[in-house]
Amino acid sequence: MWESLVESVPNVSEGRDRAAIEAMATAIREVTSVRLLDVQSDRDHHRTVFTLVGEPDGVADAILRLFAAALPRIDLRTHRGEHPRMGAVDVVPFVPVRGVTMADCVVLARRVGREVWDRFRVPVYLYEEAATRPERRDLAEIRQGQFEAFPEKIKQPEWAPDFGEPAVHPTAGATVIGAREFLIAFNVNLGTSDLKIAKAIAQAVRGSSGGLRYVKALGLTLEERGIVQVSMNLTNYRKTPLARVVEMVRAEAVRYGVSVVGTEIVGLIPEQALFQAAAHYMGVEQFSPDLVLERRVDSALKGR
Amino acid sequence: MWESLVESVPNVSEGRDRAAIEAMATAIREVTSVRLLDVQSDRDHHRTVFTLVGEPDGVADAILRLFAAALPRIDLRTHRGEHPRMGAVDVVPFVPVRGVTMADCVVLARRVGREVWDRFRVPVYLYEEAATRPERRDLAEIRQGQFEAFPEKIKQPEWAPDFGEPAVHPTAGATVIGAREFLIAFNVNLGTSDLKIAKAIAQAVRGSSGGLRYVKALGLTLEERGIVQVSMNLTNYRKTPLARVVEMVRAEAVRYGVSVVGTEIVGLIPEQALFQAAAHYMGVEQFSPDLVLERRVDSALKGR
Repeated sequence: MWESLVESVPNVSEGRDRAAIEAMATAIREVTSVRLLDVQSDRDHHRTVFTLVGEPDGVADAILRLFAAALPRIDLRTHRGEHPRMGAVDVVPFVPVRGVTMADCVVLARRVGREVWDRFRVPVYLYEEAATRPERRDLAEIRQGQFEAFPEKIKQPEWAPDFGEPAVHPTAGATVIGAREFLIAFNVNLGTSDLKIAKAIAQAVRGSSGGLRYVKALGLTLEERGIVQVSMNLTNYRKTPLARVVEMVRAEAVRYGVSVVGTEIVGLIPEQALFQAAAHYMGVEQFSPDLVLERRVDSALKGR
Repeated sequence: MWESLVESVPNVSEGRDRAAIEAMATAIREVTSVRLLDVQSDRDHHRTVFTLVGEPDGVADAILRLFAAALPRIDLRTHRGEHPRMGAVDVVPFVPVRGVTMADCVVLARRVGREVWDRFRVPVYLYEEAATRPERRDLAEIRQGQFEAFPEKIKQPEWAPDFGEPAVHPTAGATVIGAREFLIAFNVNLGTSDLKIAKAIAQAVRGSSGGLRYVKALGLTLEERGIVQVSMNLTNYRKTPLARVVEMVRAEAVRYGVSVVGTEIVGLIPEQALFQAAAHYMGVEQFSPDLVLERRVDSALKGR
């Protein structure tokens, strides 16, 4: 029974060389107190996303081993892919899952960031909840200019790295490490083929254009089904709960005389997000995860 | 990590003698592969309900130890309480929780039933999902007449016990053992003090009077809050899901011009019932518990 669970989703700038990717996966698997849940490589993006989960110390160890495996195998000077990148190990978020706070993950991000500089001489920026200044919260803003522009960017005082000297690693660039909430990918399918409606609803619900703070959304067509979809990323399900998002999309759909034909959870969803939605819709007065049988059993198992 | 989890909720005819109750709790706790989650004694009922959970073999062992501890301490010839009873250990249900089917629990009930007769000479009836004939599904029907009438009832051919000879144990009577679904206690609070409305809604939703098959319901007054409540037991949340019950109560409340001010989960609820409700209300197209992060992590932990 692991009481403290952290997820990490490192993005590495290698999506083509099977042997290199397998070497990195093996490095992660060597740590007994973590599990590698998923490896997704994209040739066009030339990028691989690893999903691992485990005890905080184990996850920190696995990330450092991943750096050790990735750095000799990736040379950004010759790297060309569709996805923006500034580092060989490009971005490393830590996500609280169970028995761990966001503050714990910020501490973890700082610890790993310092170590990445000390051991590998790769300068590190802290982002999202671990950011040291507001303009460094957003990954896209830090990464702007990419590997090619970084030798100059890093010399500007306002872009001095959080760990390390203001000079990029010759082949591995710089790395972004931080802490964030679990990201839920959630789609709502509409009973129409009119893409304009999906785009209008996406615009209405997403935070950037005036909608819900922690929603990113876009409208797209599902060719095979002949319908359209509002495709969303929920970046903080605690503050912008799933049920509120669904109800806002439904209300907008009604406004266009269109029905919601179904929804989809893409990838994984934390149980807490589902408990929250159930309690919301059923109007439970004093909901607590302690009411859940399996949680109580787990607590009893730990207590022994 | 325990892969197979069974719950058992034995009801014992002793609710007053602290030392006796503690001896029974200790007997259960002796088994390392079970956890005693709860002990509730009622002096008026003269009855104690133990809630334990664990691996099937461990739970079977704990129940037999409970019999060994209870039998020398309880004499039904002098037992008087408000709650109906026919045995010292009155009723023992086994409930599938995780990685265990109802069929597994039926097998467990039979195994423990046979052993109770072999070791303690207490005749055993099988009930609910473990019943050997339709009229033995219902506990109340088996127990009808109680301990006092059983010496005669047990001699009738149609009431021959499932295990043992047709004669009650002199001090411990007979025992009912079986398998059933997890029971959810769920209340809906109404924005009115009119008890007639709560009673009318209870009658509309409960299976016995034409409502939902696996709902038991009654209307009652919450004196302190000055409102009324539809108090329910959901005896099979897989076949009569929580969301459908809530929506039926809401629809009936509308019919009386009354609002639902809140709901309450009493005791514990299986995570599956909440996942189900969330997926229902959000219209998730292909929901599976495999989408839940914590389930995936648990599977990964087991897989190693």
